[in-house]
Amino acid sequence: MSLQAIRYKRGELQLLNQLLLPDRTEYEDIKSVRDGWRAIKEMKVRGAPAIAIAGCLSVGVEVANRDFRSVEELVKFVTDSLAYLVTARPTAVNMTEASVRFSKEISKLSKEGCSSKEKLKDWFLQAVQDMLDRDVEDNKAMGKYGAEHILQNVGEKRVTVLTHCNTGSLATAGYGTALGVIRALNERKAIEEVYCTETRPYNQGARLTAYELVHDRIPSTLITDSMAAALMRTKGISAIVVGADRVVANGDTANKIGTYQLAILAHHHGVPFYIAAPSTTCDLSLRTGEEIVIEERPHKEMTHIKGTRLAPEGIKCWNPAFDVTPHDLITGGIITEKGVFPPEKLETALQRLNRQQDR
Amino acid sequence: MSLQAIRYKRGELQLLNQLLLPDRTEYEDIKSVRDGWRAIKEMKVRGAPAIAIAGCLSVGVEVANRDFRSVEELVKFVTDSLAYLVTARPTAVNMTEASVRFSKEISKLSKEGCSSKEKLKDWFLQAVQDMLDRDVEDNKAMGKYGAEHILQNVGEKRVTVLTHCNTGSLATAGYGTALGVIRALNERKAIEEVYCTETRPYNQGARLTAYELVHDRIPSTLITDSMAAALMRTKGISAIVVGADRVVANGDTANKIGTYQLAILAHHHGVPFYIAAPSTTCDLSLRTGEEIVIEERPHKEMTHIKGTRLAPEGIKCWNPAFDVTPHDLITGGIITEKGVFPPEKLETALQRLNRQQDR
Repeated sequence: MSLQAIRYKRGELQLLNQLLLPDRTEYEDIKSVRDGWRAIKEMKVRGAPAIAIAGCLSVGVEVANRDFRSVEELVKFVTDSLAYLVTARPTAVNMTEASVRFSKEISKLSKEGCSSKEKLKDWFLQAVQDMLDRDVEDNKAMGKYGAEHILQNVGEKRVTVLTHCNTGSLATAGYGTALGVIRALNERKAIEEVYCTETRPYNQGARLTAYELVHDRIPSTLITDSMAAALMRTKGISAIVVGADRVVANGDTANKIGTYQLAILAHHHGVPFYIAAPSTTCDLSLRTGEEIVIEERPHKEMTHIKGTRLAPEGIKCWNPAFDVTPHDLITGGIITEKGVFPPEKLETALQRLNRQQDR
Repeated sequence: MSLQAIRYKRGELQLLNQLLLPDRTEYEDIKSVRDGWRAIKEMKVRGAPAIAIAGCLSVGVEVANRDFRSVEELVKFVTDSLAYLVTARPTAVNMTEASVRFSKEISKLSKEGCSSKEKLKDWFLQAVQDMLDRDVEDNKAMGKYGAEHILQNVGEKRVTVLTHCNTGSLATAGYGTALGVIRALNERKAIEEVYCTETRPYNQGARLTAYELVHDRIPSTLITDSMAAALMRTKGISAIVVGADRVVANGDTANKIGTYQLAILAHHHGVPFYIAAPSTTCDLSLRTGEEIVIEERPHKEMTHIKGTRLAPEGIKCWNPAFDVTPHDLITGGIITEKGVFPPEKLETALQRLNRQQDR
């Protein structure tokens, strides 16, 4: 049984509190948009795709359980709630993308004369259910494309892969993005070893990725973020695969802090560097990474671990949650559910595929 | 009052238990060589210079308090004890250097007819006292040379410096190596900001360097090891200065894990990269970094923090304590108590200076 970060059925939502992993497996009831916002903000649920899905489902839960006096009230509730959820973790684009898309569609439907509250409710609840289901399908497609591309690129039957942060079942509706690619490689019996960084300051690698890798019995070893270069030099790494919080038009990619330096180190050692991200993470409205706003998180995440103080009183901290990797360091490619693209061809490819879809 | 890792007077030694910092300041009595070995192994005292000094002083304590039946017994005790202390942390060369030097000298003195146990005892106790005193002098010389070189190299009145691990009063007899250079810059009012990495997995940066910087009121900010590249790109860094556990003949340098990748990142961003190390850390008997044996430490250092489990049961760990930075990445120079040298000129310079000293 694969790990589940999100348990959902119409009107009911539970989120795995990832702050307690790997010690305890506890699901929390999410009964409102406010509960959803708080779970995202406090990082009980994290990972760009999971944030968007959990956020939208929290709107779904309130929509399912509440009475609305009018279509207008329902539309306003959905639109306001989605916009509010974006503010919890602004760097991850998937929530913004879902907010804009659903808000536009529900407004359009209501204006096109969908006069029944119930029909509009059903439409929204189906839309969020589809989002949940589709994420897993997209991840499996990414896994397939990514695994095939890496094996062909590397030219070996078994590969040693390094990943960063958590991009697995816990960061998505299931299977994962970068970790989905690793799962797909493992299903092809092509994994020699997976190395995962602990991913300071929030230890998503040590707590979550290691947990998923052990759970799936994939041969795997934990390193600290400071060991990446020594690892590449002494152990040999076939490829690095990481996820993304936002990929912009020119291929520049915002992802968990530490990604940028892994890309530089990969380049130095001649290791291909891949981003795995569904097309919903690609934000073609921004031209370059310079335009991405980087969230800074509380200092306490660095100075304390699980309530224990590490650093002395009085020291300042700099705690950006993400950094931007310039497209020219993404030497392997950007793995999407629609194929693997060199960063400079991503925009054109996605526009072409979107046009085909719209036809 | 400057921080003191080592408190010593003839026959008495106390070491600050650095594992308890920054929470508690507790000194432990070291009454024997065995106590010294254990304190080094358990990293209650760490940093290549401090390891050597604490180790030799622990021999001094036993020598001062014990009766020896003969000169031979005393010589054997000193020689065996020093060789035993080398085994506690083999990568740091200073302990080896001290062991070889003192063993040779005491054997020579005993053979040259120094027939009195008391005279030989006094000689040894003076020698370890001199070692303690000289370390601070050497660090101040390094600080002066390093600060002047950096200011001239960078061409600015105020600099922003990044450092890694702890190389300060806590890693030496006082003042510090790389942190000594930072202290010297600060005394010249030339520090805009010091950034220190937390230095996983043992958090010497977060626990110890941050503690020293706050103690000395030097403007300073903590980052995780994963933020170094983002810092260089967004905040601008004038120079990186780190210590060393061993510098070999061609300038290749073993230092705390993570140093190698900082050097690559510095090179990528055009930031000069400096090593600060006393000449006792330079091991000209090894030709290249390939010959340096890298200590691997227990997995628990990575999977737990202060007794709290971070990573799940069942995950493997790779935990090398050091890595080797190739000399061509040491673009600023190697700062010693005798001057600042480009890595490729270090060997010749030290040999020349040693010859002058011997005359």
